[in-house]
Amino acid sequence: MGGDFAPDNNIKGALDAVKERGKYIHIQLVGKAGVLKSKLKEITGSDENNIEIVNADEVITMDDSPAESFRSKPHSSMSVGLDLQKSGQSDAFMSAGNTGAILANSLFKLGRLEGISRPTIGSILPTIRGVTFVLDVGASVDCKPKHLLEYAVMGSSYMNTVLNISNPKVGLLGIGEEKSKGNELTAQTYELLEKSKINFIGNIEGGDILRGKADVVVCDGFTGNIVLKLSESFVEILRYKMKEYSEKGFFKKLWIGSFVGTFKKILKDFDYQTLGGVPLLGVNGVSFVGHGRSTPLAVKNMIFKSEIAARKNLPERIKENLKKFI
Amino acid sequence: MGGDFAPDNNIKGALDAVKERGKYIHIQLVGKAGVLKSKLKEITGSDENNIEIVNADEVITMDDSPAESFRSKPHSSMSVGLDLQKSGQSDAFMSAGNTGAILANSLFKLGRLEGISRPTIGSILPTIRGVTFVLDVGASVDCKPKHLLEYAVMGSSYMNTVLNISNPKVGLLGIGEEKSKGNELTAQTYELLEKSKINFIGNIEGGDILRGKADVVVCDGFTGNIVLKLSESFVEILRYKMKEYSEKGFFKKLWIGSFVGTFKKILKDFDYQTLGGVPLLGVNGVSFVGHGRSTPLAVKNMIFKSEIAARKNLPERIKENLKKFI
Repeated sequence: MGGDFAPDNNIKGALDAVKERGKYIHIQLVGKAGVLKSKLKEITGSDENNIEIVNADEVITMDDSPAESFRSKPHSSMSVGLDLQKSGQSDAFMSAGNTGAILANSLFKLGRLEGISRPTIGSILPTIRGVTFVLDVGASVDCKPKHLLEYAVMGSSYMNTVLNISNPKVGLLGIGEEKSKGNELTAQTYELLEKSKINFIGNIEGGDILRGKADVVVCDGFTGNIVLKLSESFVEILRYKMKEYSEKGFFKKLWIGSFVGTFKKILKDFDYQTLGGVPLLGVNGVSFVGHGRSTPLAVKNMIFKSEIAARKNLPERIKENLKKFI
Repeated sequence: MGGDFAPDNNIKGALDAVKERGKYIHIQLVGKAGVLKSKLKEITGSDENNIEIVNADEVITMDDSPAESFRSKPHSSMSVGLDLQKSGQSDAFMSAGNTGAILANSLFKLGRLEGISRPTIGSILPTIRGVTFVLDVGASVDCKPKHLLEYAVMGSSYMNTVLNISNPKVGLLGIGEEKSKGNELTAQTYELLEKSKINFIGNIEGGDILRGKADVVVCDGFTGNIVLKLSESFVEILRYKMKEYSEKGFFKKLWIGSFVGTFKKILKDFDYQTLGGVPLLGVNGVSFVGHGRSTPLAVKNMIFKSEIAARKNLPERIKENLKKFI
């Protein structure tokens, strides 16, 4: 029931996922059963499909307070969906709804992972070399060095386990390459990362993120959120500029088609949709967070990512790495 | 003598500025007189020109410690150049050299402006509507609320005085529009800005910066530096992607020319060169900081900006606004 285009895009994404990997995955759609059933029928044109519907009477909206949502709406689709995992009836949970509520409900239902002080939500950003994982992007705005150290372990574990990157390079987001550069938080975090067995490549600057210098970029959630939103806005601004110039007549009309096509290819590389959602890390289970504007493609890709995280038991990998790296 | 392409680009920029506004401005090139003289002759092909050379035997490099540079190199071009202003022989100083050293030398020579706790260096970023002034971008990494309040006053004063924007809109960089969203620093700064007579439009998010929601964006220097570097990297990444796709053959060769041309127009809008340098604000005088890679065009534009700042007596305007706004 979560997301700006729920339940339509969630259902469509689920159907596409089942179509591709129907033998390997089983999808449970959690929400108001009547609504989901009729929507499913509307979309597929049939009463028969391979998707299970699990009823949940309440819906957490963007206006609900995350911290209170699991008490004020105990029968929400989030709550019921996470219960399925808690009771062993599912292996992964995901939602494109209220991010704070996903965090709060997941933490309440699944519990915090042993050895982790604070769960975190990161973001996968496209780079010129592939992707980079920036965390935290808003779960914790005032962080301590040990939180960033834990983010580094969790980020490495995700990139290695789910995205198959061996020995992920971890960069500390700062304002200069030298150890001494940065603020109090980064100076102290640098020491911790240096002492750890994480593949720490040192401070990286804002300009290094999209250049793909590191596979994992750790920062406090305030900085990370600004990085994420600023990066996302680039694509929008390019589209705007594109339109502006085409209206100003810098294009010959014949060329517009080709230009737009190529431009779209470039923009697509920077589009979150192809990357799906991001994991909520540091809880004792698999919980994914989708963009509020998730398209069916984004939902489908999020399902596939969560499948890998569940199959490979990401929480266990993080626990192992906490012992191995710190 | 400062900048990656010094003294060539500085001299060329100065010559271009004199060509355009020779009646109104007088340029002093400060540095090793022999080098400057022969370079000037090499570039202009003549011994005659409208530019004064002021000798300075030492050069501050990127390796010099900013904090020590005004003691260790008392005869540097920065030191001598700032002395000219202090003694009334010039109205504005600028350099594309070591930013920290410009700040330290300017503060040492010109003194801190009355009512300002910490000088700041901002950055003018292009937006879809025009430009926005982000400050601080690295002079102070650990800031207190009152520093951000002062940045707001200084930023407003610059945008109003030099860029002619009436009643500039000031946004506080945060992670959500609500007053409560953000970290400790922004929550406290919000209160101060709300109480002031600054045209405060509230919190703005990372995505709002390039959308041009605010004319002035205030943040701590750590966050601002990351915003600046990330924004700058975007142009580079687009260029890279552009090249990648053209090599992959997505273009018909015939179209490449047109595409590149239009693309360059878009990139130019996001290019720092057209914007020139940025002011060092909060010192008792006019001091500008150029990008290390300043082209002649960037140098020329920096000269023009500093001319306006000097003519309109920017430091006095800031002092007035401190009284008016706070």
